[in-house]
Amino acid sequence: MSGVSTAFSRMLGLRSPIIQAPMAGGPSSAELVAAVSAAGALGSFGFAYTQPDEMKKAVATVRAKTARPLGINLFLSPQPGAIADEAQRAALAALEPFYAEMGLPVPQSAKPPYAPDLEAQLSAVAELRPAVFTVHLADFPAARVNEFRNLGMKLGGSATTVGEAKHLAALGFDFVIAQGGEAGGHRGTYARDPYDALTGTLALTRMIVRAIRVPVVAAGGIMDGEGIAAVLALGAQAAQLGTAFIPCPESGAADIHKKAVLGCREDDTRITEKFSGKPARGIANRFMREAVRFPQIPFPAQNVLTGKLRQASAKAGKADFYTLWAGQAAPLARALPAEELVARLEQETIEALRRAAALVDR
Amino acid sequence: MSGVSTAFSRMLGLRSPIIQAPMAGGPSSAELVAAVSAAGALGSFGFAYTQPDEMKKAVATVRAKTARPLGINLFLSPQPGAIADEAQRAALAALEPFYAEMGLPVPQSAKPPYAPDLEAQLSAVAELRPAVFTVHLADFPAARVNEFRNLGMKLGGSATTVGEAKHLAALGFDFVIAQGGEAGGHRGTYARDPYDALTGTLALTRMIVRAIRVPVVAAGGIMDGEGIAAVLALGAQAAQLGTAFIPCPESGAADIHKKAVLGCREDDTRITEKFSGKPARGIANRFMREAVRFPQIPFPAQNVLTGKLRQASAKAGKADFYTLWAGQAAPLARALPAEELVARLEQETIEALRRAAALVDR
Repeated sequence: MSGVSTAFSRMLGLRSPIIQAPMAGGPSSAELVAAVSAAGALGSFGFAYTQPDEMKKAVATVRAKTARPLGINLFLSPQPGAIADEAQRAALAALEPFYAEMGLPVPQSAKPPYAPDLEAQLSAVAELRPAVFTVHLADFPAARVNEFRNLGMKLGGSATTVGEAKHLAALGFDFVIAQGGEAGGHRGTYARDPYDALTGTLALTRMIVRAIRVPVVAAGGIMDGEGIAAVLALGAQAAQLGTAFIPCPESGAADIHKKAVLGCREDDTRITEKFSGKPARGIANRFMREAVRFPQIPFPAQNVLTGKLRQASAKAGKADFYTLWAGQAAPLARALPAEELVARLEQETIEALRRAAALVDR
Repeated sequence: MSGVSTAFSRMLGLRSPIIQAPMAGGPSSAELVAAVSAAGALGSFGFAYTQPDEMKKAVATVRAKTARPLGINLFLSPQPGAIADEAQRAALAALEPFYAEMGLPVPQSAKPPYAPDLEAQLSAVAELRPAVFTVHLADFPAARVNEFRNLGMKLGGSATTVGEAKHLAALGFDFVIAQGGEAGGHRGTYARDPYDALTGTLALTRMIVRAIRVPVVAAGGIMDGEGIAAVLALGAQAAQLGTAFIPCPESGAADIHKKAVLGCREDDTRITEKFSGKPARGIANRFMREAVRFPQIPFPAQNVLTGKLRQASAKAGKADFYTLWAGQAAPLARALPAEELVARLEQETIEALRRAAALVDR
């Protein structure tokens, strides 16, 4: 059987140069990661909000099912210290009508830590030694880069500008993920205002491929083999797809999230920082439209203030107050088992590459 | 010699599936259009601000040099009627410090017509019968579509959403230009708020290719053959490149514009509606930064208020107050003669397609 391979996919022992994007907060379940990795692509955990013990359990679940490589991703952005009551009260007051609509009181103020301890998460990664470890929303000191690489992991980082990519390459990262403006969820901008770093995937991937010597993985708006073929033509060595995997039965995404991805039309996505404190792209819902001018507290503390609202919304099957993270090409999503999706992506990529090459007259 | 061809390029008798984007206000000079068309791609005039007599002269200049096909593009957005003095005074007062810095008084209020008469321009197109006529910033009544197609022209329209593309296809357009968020200048959004229609070229092209049956031309952030190969892999039948042609010696772009494109770094572009009244992407300069909250009058009347400022800025070799329209991948621009640029684009496309196809194991 034919396959597609690049130096990057061979380095990792993947059957196809396809990464299932780490998606924190649900979608990247152990079942999804296991199914994707077993199918020959790279399944990845988004462990931003996951405690070390849970990280270990999830990885063990995958490893019980497949010996193939997997990836882990963490958010490296520093947590803020204690946040003034006044700011918290303003943020909570704005959320109050939404909580009331769900029959809930607003929660208490958020207290640090607002997310799992990063050092403890990093220790868990060092213990778990996944084939791939990727970092998001920050760079990583060169000493840390060496430490993780010396443990046998391939280290990747997200870049949304050429400058960010050059910096990661200079720090010794094994590869850089060029994350274009189409991407869903929290994009990895770490050196600029994220709203000033919304370069499209096509332009960004090509500029980063031209600017650095380490392998580039393209992400953002890639949903099928034609998209994968396109980024390979740009010189990327792999494609990272998140939204494409959300509707898989193995995905841990909430049902309302899966439904929203499968039902959205055209360009229904918008960017909001009102759920978490940092800008992220999702399918526009009432929260995103009505919270535009809400006061907020910094990431990830705002996540704490909206947490019970989001959970209640999902539980009630109501999409209004939930984080429907998705990239701009969400309408191309398909509800297929992960193994079948990976096989189709491979086959489509092969066909798209052959079809495009056949346009060359000899 | 090898070449790349698609049904679209064969339909137009082009040697390569490459369109030099129509760029109103200077860059698409007769010299550039002639050189591009003679080289086997499609040279295109952006005649939005050009009077019918000048349109005819420019086309005659090209036709004296080459018998190969050329394209003409017009902006179809309706002009506003008389604009209240109060609004004009507020817009002019905001511009006054910039005019003063250039040693000029602010101009008089703008009076209609603010741009050439559209019906007269359309009559000129009907008389000139270019191989390709494309419309921008609006749709076109079905009767008009038939009229122009019956004159032997191939008719194209810009779409920035799937909905816009479907509508153009339903009206009988011969092809649709999927203009992604990376694109420079005025993007052709006509059915939505342009700020809500910033889907990246990769995602938009693929969604539009999937949604309609007429040929799709991709535009936005494409600067080299790898970018062209990428959109062909997505299923587009041609690529439209604007910024890539701005630094050509034949281009009529102002020197400060050429320099800015060649000298910009990373993602230096922003979107502003303060020059013309409609959002357009350009390299951020003082005007774009400082005018963010200026009051403005509607397109294209705002163009009239800023016209002398832009001209004086260009004449003084000062980039501060000029429209440095450019797409997000501007850093990849090359100052090459148009014929050589087209030849390189062709060669790079062939190599990129072959390189990508070679990733398929047999």
